[in-house]
Amino acid sequence: MNVADLGLPVAVPSTALFTDQYELTMVQAALRSGTADRRSVFEVFTRRLPEGRRYGVVAGTGRLLDAVENFRFDATILDFLTERGILDETTRAWLADYRFRGDIWGYPEGEVYFPGSPILRVEGTFAEAVLLETVILSILNHDSAVAAAASRMSVAAGERPLIEMGARRTHELAAVAASRAAYVGGFHTTSDLAAGFRYNIPTAGTSAHSFTLLHDNERDAFTAQVDSLGAGTTLLVDTYDVTEAVRTAVEVAGPGLGAVRIDSGDLLLLAHRVRQQLDELGATDTRIVVTSDLDEYAIASLAAAPVDAYGVGTQLVTGSGHPTCSMVYKLVARADSNGDGAPLRPVAKKSMGGKASHGGRKWAARRPDADGVAEAEVIGTGPVPAELADRQLMVPLVRGGEVVAREPLDAARERHIAARAGLPMSAMQLSRGEAVLPTEYV
Amino acid sequence: MNVADLGLPVAVPSTALFTDQYELTMVQAALRSGTADRRSVFEVFTRRLPEGRRYGVVAGTGRLLDAVENFRFDATILDFLTERGILDETTRAWLADYRFRGDIWGYPEGEVYFPGSPILRVEGTFAEAVLLETVILSILNHDSAVAAAASRMSVAAGERPLIEMGARRTHELAAVAASRAAYVGGFHTTSDLAAGFRYNIPTAGTSAHSFTLLHDNERDAFTAQVDSLGAGTTLLVDTYDVTEAVRTAVEVAGPGLGAVRIDSGDLLLLAHRVRQQLDELGATDTRIVVTSDLDEYAIASLAAAPVDAYGVGTQLVTGSGHPTCSMVYKLVARADSNGDGAPLRPVAKKSMGGKASHGGRKWAARRPDADGVAEAEVIGTGPVPAELADRQLMVPLVRGGEVVAREPLDAARERHIAARAGLPMSAMQLSRGEAVLPTEYV
Repeated sequence: MNVADLGLPVAVPSTALFTDQYELTMVQAALRSGTADRRSVFEVFTRRLPEGRRYGVVAGTGRLLDAVENFRFDATILDFLTERGILDETTRAWLADYRFRGDIWGYPEGEVYFPGSPILRVEGTFAEAVLLETVILSILNHDSAVAAAASRMSVAAGERPLIEMGARRTHELAAVAASRAAYVGGFHTTSDLAAGFRYNIPTAGTSAHSFTLLHDNERDAFTAQVDSLGAGTTLLVDTYDVTEAVRTAVEVAGPGLGAVRIDSGDLLLLAHRVRQQLDELGATDTRIVVTSDLDEYAIASLAAAPVDAYGVGTQLVTGSGHPTCSMVYKLVARADSNGDGAPLRPVAKKSMGGKASHGGRKWAARRPDADGVAEAEVIGTGPVPAELADRQLMVPLVRGGEVVAREPLDAARERHIAARAGLPMSAMQLSRGEAVLPTEYV
Repeated sequence: MNVADLGLPVAVPSTALFTDQYELTMVQAALRSGTADRRSVFEVFTRRLPEGRRYGVVAGTGRLLDAVENFRFDATILDFLTERGILDETTRAWLADYRFRGDIWGYPEGEVYFPGSPILRVEGTFAEAVLLETVILSILNHDSAVAAAASRMSVAAGERPLIEMGARRTHELAAVAASRAAYVGGFHTTSDLAAGFRYNIPTAGTSAHSFTLLHDNERDAFTAQVDSLGAGTTLLVDTYDVTEAVRTAVEVAGPGLGAVRIDSGDLLLLAHRVRQQLDELGATDTRIVVTSDLDEYAIASLAAAPVDAYGVGTQLVTGSGHPTCSMVYKLVARADSNGDGAPLRPVAKKSMGGKASHGGRKWAARRPDADGVAEAEVIGTGPVPAELADRQLMVPLVRGGEVVAREPLDAARERHIAARAGLPMSAMQLSRGEAVLPTEYV
């Protein structure tokens, strides 16, 4: 098996099985009916943002490019599909030769999006493009959901650092992708060593309650930790009595103690009390880290408290109430016959129950107002108006099957900060509301 | 690198990086303070069920055993940790030799659980047992959340088959674990080829709207599909007009058409209308599959409709509103000194903000009433009462580091059906309520 680097902490061969069975049966039927080579355009978009959210955040693009590059069917996979009776011989032979040779355009990673935004466009033959549907949606739906939650938390946290610590609350490999997406959305560090290994994200973490309980008393535990990690470490002070723990912590580590962590109780009250106590003990530079079931609202409610960093777990990796996006992958245009020269015809499912689609191959641009603040997401199928030509959002990601848009993760993180800064101020409100930009179809 | 079979569609070396950094810093500090070898008992439990839920479902145990067995630190991993400054040389040497040599007991996979149930007990030295915290919680929290949702959906569906099709709505590898958990919870098939490959779960899927849109008209599309997959296939009938599509479908495939699928619109109304039309066309054995954003409530609302199978995506893989469980991994007892002979002392964090723990190494039993229906989850730290001796819930999973409880996935699935059947009838209510069994501590 060819071994690929798929954004995992480990090498994994091929992404081709991360696929719904119907993609293969469609390829087989299309090969048989002679339509498999019709030039086709698929687009990824959402019909709506999660309820109350002001904007979405594109994340996972880098992982998606790896997945497309490594989407190959080797003998092990083909034998499985054949044994299951899913493939005929013609399809098997076609899949054995498969690699994606088409083009992909999309919103770059970290960019914001709105209902209808053509987040990704995949162009190729029907058969080569339809196959990628499941894995592309898996990656974008998961990673973008986490990044959107991260972005809101980073708005709430302002300049204070955010630590991602949700690995234990989600699938062990989803956790690695979640750390990555959180970093794109504005987090600073992660507890997840696999994410540190794979994406070079700074890692953090010192001790849990079990470490204090292991020792005969809190002083022994703090002494053991300071001996091992130095006075700059973070001591967890809520195993027994917080006030006593803080006193012991400063006695053991000295006023140069790096930080104390509070993981339970009334964080607002405790933060004030602990800050005062630390200051009285001369530990004026000792920071306070809080980490108890936080979400963006809890973070915001601590804005006036003397808190220096937030650790966020469950609510981050579960998208703060919205663990997935509703991105879909739809055929929007296709040729009437095979071959590169055939003209494209817009297609769309008939609307029923709100599942409407806009047919046609689209461009997208973000129109600024006179002050340079974004005022509309403009989406069209015809020529791009001259005044929007340099405001276009889609960039080439894959050309003729070759990935052309690899970038360091920090580029996506910085892009997100810039994109968010270009939105109207109301984008930063945590309260429920409509998408902060209207979508205009031209 | 040693290559392990971790419940993934592909081989993955080592689970040791699926770990929060603080597990390693605690090991290092404990090695230094001389407490690393204190015999310790960690337990996994939840303080509560998700709001309104009547029972939880243990899932992921099989994956967990693989993860424990393959939790090894090779040179690549150790070099990374050393370069990051996370490890000193003593800890590095200790990790290089690491394998778990302790014992694990737990509720077997598919069993139900309640607040406080000791779902898993890990016994060993502090250092060897604390290391497993993150990966164990990741697996159990994710898989059990999906299995609980699946179980409720399978109650709602009754005898009708359930198809898992949520891969596109979650991380691509979380999707594989979700298919597995859904199968444990009562689903019958999956769209996810990776889950079929890895777990031998039956797979399903025929075509999407894009296949119809690819062809010049619906008749061409249906003809192509029937030519390729036979008249027993499932035709998707809601791309344009459902009534016309059903007529065309039966004309093309004949009255032996396997099934039609409806993916949008008012499913209750459409199911009745399509059933009548199919019957009038002589296609009395043609089944109706529905697949539009279903959850357990939507499934229940279709109980009286002529629906033959349900396909469920988003709500399944996101745990139907509860994408993770709140399982924690807590030190509940430890020795005062190193060595196997030292007696165990119960330990627990002081309660603050509801984060109470019950110290001590626990047993659990489910007490039946006079009719044999479960009436209480009984948890204790002392001797097991004689009348509960054969009602105990925890079984040995790992002894001295060796996995002793591997089983086929069907065993877990059957166990779940039996466990659920032993609960009071109110467990089957979808409406919100309290845990169906009280937890009694003795």
